[in-house]
Amino acid sequence: DMLLAYLVGFEVACSVGDAISPAYFDDLGWHPTGPLGALGAAAAAARLLGLDVEQTAMAISLGASQSSGLRQNFGTMTKPFHAGHACKSGITAAKLVRGGFTAGTDALEGRFGFMRAFSGGNDYDPEKAAASLGERCFMIESGIEIKKYPCCGSAHLALDATTALQQQEILEAANIERIEVRVDFDPPRSLIHSRPKEGLEGKFSMQYCLAAEILDGRVGMASFTDEQVMRPKAQELIPKIEMKRHPGYEGQLSWTEANHEVEIHLKDGRVLTQRAERATTGSLRGATLEEVRTKYRDTAAIALTSENTATTLQMLDNLEDIGPVGPLADLLGG
Amino acid sequence: DMLLAYLVGFEVACSVGDAISPAYFDDLGWHPTGPLGALGAAAAAARLLGLDVEQTAMAISLGASQSSGLRQNFGTMTKPFHAGHACKSGITAAKLVRGGFTAGTDALEGRFGFMRAFSGGNDYDPEKAAASLGERCFMIESGIEIKKYPCCGSAHLALDATTALQQQEILEAANIERIEVRVDFDPPRSLIHSRPKEGLEGKFSMQYCLAAEILDGRVGMASFTDEQVMRPKAQELIPKIEMKRHPGYEGQLSWTEANHEVEIHLKDGRVLTQRAERATTGSLRGATLEEVRTKYRDTAAIALTSENTATTLQMLDNLEDIGPVGPLADLLGG
Repeated sequence: DMLLAYLVGFEVACSVGDAISPAYFDDLGWHPTGPLGALGAAAAAARLLGLDVEQTAMAISLGASQSSGLRQNFGTMTKPFHAGHACKSGITAAKLVRGGFTAGTDALEGRFGFMRAFSGGNDYDPEKAAASLGERCFMIESGIEIKKYPCCGSAHLALDATTALQQQEILEAANIERIEVRVDFDPPRSLIHSRPKEGLEGKFSMQYCLAAEILDGRVGMASFTDEQVMRPKAQELIPKIEMKRHPGYEGQLSWTEANHEVEIHLKDGRVLTQRAERATTGSLRGATLEEVRTKYRDTAAIALTSENTATTLQMLDNLEDIGPVGPLADLLGG
Repeated sequence: DMLLAYLVGFEVACSVGDAISPAYFDDLGWHPTGPLGALGAAAAAARLLGLDVEQTAMAISLGASQSSGLRQNFGTMTKPFHAGHACKSGITAAKLVRGGFTAGTDALEGRFGFMRAFSGGNDYDPEKAAASLGERCFMIESGIEIKKYPCCGSAHLALDATTALQQQEILEAANIERIEVRVDFDPPRSLIHSRPKEGLEGKFSMQYCLAAEILDGRVGMASFTDEQVMRPKAQELIPKIEMKRHPGYEGQLSWTEANHEVEIHLKDGRVLTQRAERATTGSLRGATLEEVRTKYRDTAAIALTSENTATTLQMLDNLEDIGPVGPLADLLGG
């Protein structure tokens, strides 16, 4: 039940997201996790509560009226709050509707509904969203891109490229003159903190993410404390890192980030260049299953004992077979 | 304290609302009570909790990230839900920030913030909003427009015009051939239910509101039950009522609704025409103080005993002098 509900929510959120304008994110500044997440959560909760078709439409409409989340709050606690708030909004919507609360049944596609409002009035296509449901399966087609580093996804390809360079040779911060990172969106987009002073800001800083990778050889949860971001070595390296758009692509919209290129100019005159391409197919992308497990251990350790981390990882690996998810949820509660 | 906090919230919401595009409401379909209400509630709650300047900015930013509410849900329980949700979002924001939660301090005016997102990227002016705070006082300048009828405000002027006609002569539904209502927005805007079947839809139906006024001589809470909307006399009259925009103004944006005109074609060949103008100045507009009291008694009676209705009305009339508002809040809780 839970896996099916998850899938229903996933497909609803993806089909709507696929049918609204990229300007929604790139230009207007909405954080998709918030608005689309509320729709998906409402659809998933409606499924779990066994709502009928009209009730499900109402739950999604009521979720749509709670949809929110602004990218300007990236780099603060409010950014992850968007995910939880979306989830809560969807569940609240489904529960209220179950209790007899009413909402429209067309608040996604209606003239004054979600798709128009969040697209700024342009480039949205309710027909496309409706047609894709039941026809396309985003879970298989585009899959889930796993963030293997616990920071903004827009820094990941550059981190991959830097890791590849590190496998060729040891990068010494003292020997670096400057670094140019070429990305395929107009900076800063989500990476709004070019000179971060706090751990949370570091997660939305291309400069700090690369600095941490070069200084520590890996980027994990431990990278994003205030102390790590403020250490002199990082603060010295940060201003040497510049982020630009690939030449010739400035000012264009972007949605997928196809590739990033890192160019490290060393003090000895050499220039190291590495490009990382984004995987765009496969249901698990961006990380191998083992990398996913490693990241889970790294992040879970913040709240769980090592024993509970191992136990929950095993349960998650066998999610289809563990039966009721209550015990897992209890353990994840920390 | 409470009155000052209310005023702070009111001015914040108005100054931001005044500096964003009318398309925000007219074209994109946001329901201002939701998004602007969350900002106002956050500002008011921040004031009550004694937050400092940075914390207040964070509370407003966190409120902005919960701002939501779509006009497509008008005519359902979700529409009034927007007001409560906005209030809750603002209070939650201020309380979280008091507890150490962080948000941006610029989520209204930032490049990826509230004003841009909710304006669809056009016609917004953060400078104007900032300049008006402390300089203009919206509470005095534009005041509060009171809805004297418990239905969508966009139907009010037409109801006033109909009331004026009723004072000239008794309107008999059986003698009405057709009614043309000319408004200064492109229908339906908020009045999205031209053929309502439920009480809540009736509140967002120009057709039903006028039908109720003609049949009953008054529009009050009792008008908006499912039974009243579905009674045959009302359902017969509804299709005879047509809403149009003033000729020559079609397709233009509107924000203030300056005047409505009701033209009643009688079966005996006579045509009755009446125009109602909107008052645009004065801190209490749209209703006299006595009309406000009458509406309070009408609506409060749904949840309160007649004794508590009278007591709370007296307390509200003397709000500056009653001291702590706890006892009033308890009584209003019903």
